[in-house]
Amino acid sequence: MSEKTAKSMSIIVTKGSLDWAYPPFILSTTAAAMGLDVTMFFTFYGLPLLKKKLDLSLTTLGNPAMEMPMAGMHMKMPNLFAALPGATAGATAMMKDMMKKKGVASIEELRDLAIEADVDLIACQMTMDLFEYNESEMIEGISLGGAATYIERATQCDINLFI
Amino acid sequence: MSEKTAKSMSIIVTKGSLDWAYPPFILSTTAAAMGLDVTMFFTFYGLPLLKKKLDLSLTTLGNPAMEMPMAGMHMKMPNLFAALPGATAGATAMMKDMMKKKGVASIEELRDLAIEADVDLIACQMTMDLFEYNESEMIEGISLGGAATYIERATQCDINLFI
Amino acid sequence: MSEKTAKSMSIIVTKGSLDWAYPPFILSTTAAAMGLDVTMFFTFYGLPLLKKKLDLSLTTLGNPAMEMPMAGMHMKMPNLFAALPGATAGATAMMKDMMKKKGVASIEELRDLAIEADVDLIACQMTMDLFEYNESEMIEGISLGGAATYIERATQCDINLFI
Repeated sequence: MSEKTAKSMSIIVTKGSLDWAYPPFILSTTAAAMGLDVTMFFTFYGLPLLKKKLDLSLTTLGNPAMEMPMAGMHMKMPNLFAALPGATAGATAMMKDMMKKKGVASIEELRDLAIEADVDLIACQMTMDLFEYNESEMIEGISLGGAATYIERATQCDINLFI
Repeated sequence: MSEKTAKSMSIIVTKGSLDWAYPPFILSTTAAAMGLDVTMFFTFYGLPLLKKKLDLSLTTLGNPAMEMPMAGMHMKMPNLFAALPGATAGATAMMKDMMKKKGVASIEELRDLAIEADVDLIACQMTMDLFEYNESEMIEGISLGGAATYIERATQCDINLFI
Repeated sequence: MSEKTAKSMSIIVTKGSLDWAYPPFILSTTAAAMGLDVTMFFTFYGLPLLKKKLDLSLTTLGNPAMEMPMAGMHMKMPNLFAALPGATAGATAMMKDMMKKKGVASIEELRDLAIEADVDLIACQMTMDLFEYNESEMIEGISLGGAATYIERATQCDINLFI
């Protein structure tokens, strides 16, 4: 409970798909670049984002709001088609290609940026135990913590988000 | 960083399905009616909610908690059925019908209310570029901004939500 | 608007699947144990979490980031398989089994803990009406409220989360 000088932000990161990995990393790296103290707490499906080797994908299934630009139009993908084998790989490749063309950094790059900017990365101990992850699978420079660690931190922050 | 007089709220709006469009607009219009300064930042799948012409739908797929009232009972829809052609259209029609009967305003009506109440609507520039939306497709009276715009604003707000 | 002595937290609970029911209850019971004043506002698909009889399930559909530990590896389930009849029941049973083995409390137990710890549980009146739930279906000790109830409360809280 030190005296606060800089503004601060905490993010609970609970989703680990290719698309939902972006908001927490874009917000945290931008905030850190603006001088905020940033904490990211990785839990549930967001925990694998701390793995050394990322294998992210995305599906349009269950997301009727996803509109992919295609030949100057915006296309939505029917659920039945999205459920077919290969559709997840196809949508993932399409999104990665689209991001590369537009010069959007990869999640790996944003994660490196976050580490360089001293963003505090905390892995949820309970999720580690529940889903049987080993610390050796995770990148270096992170710490382990629980809900209490997060709450203690969040009471000190100006912005708290659950993503 | 002007001196604050009113309480304030910011909402990051990331989902654009018929059901998930409601929480941000209900919260923002209610808060504005209570005198709060409200900012909505539309990004990712939430950005299309700023389009002139809305075409919202919903699916029960991937949401095992959705219980539709039917003949005095609550029914859940099996995933396999929800994946069939027409199921999204059917669930959308059912929800719209249910809302109309109960007198719930449409998203278009709530959006108009938000604009009348001076809610600040910001479209995410990066999402505009990534998904190739044109400003001409969007309603008037909005502004463009990025993550930094949002963070600057959120550090001043009493309530910050990521929806 | 009484003078604040303790720190405080509000959570909007919008999801009611077996997996997404955990974050709000773990955070609220932990925060309450740390002495925070906690309010949970149950709305949309999160409202059924206040029912006397819980019937929670989960699906891997639409969540390409879910990795279940299995024989020392982490397995993702293809969408097509996840859409088949029985897959939701299977994934639910697997998750419940995994949680039991690891000593994770059930949602019913965490909810009891929250009530014992004086967490303020508010059911969204609009959702009650829209989805035709009766107060008699809900557990005792809760109150009814609307978006204005939530916003009034949240402006006083140190941490506000939308889950």
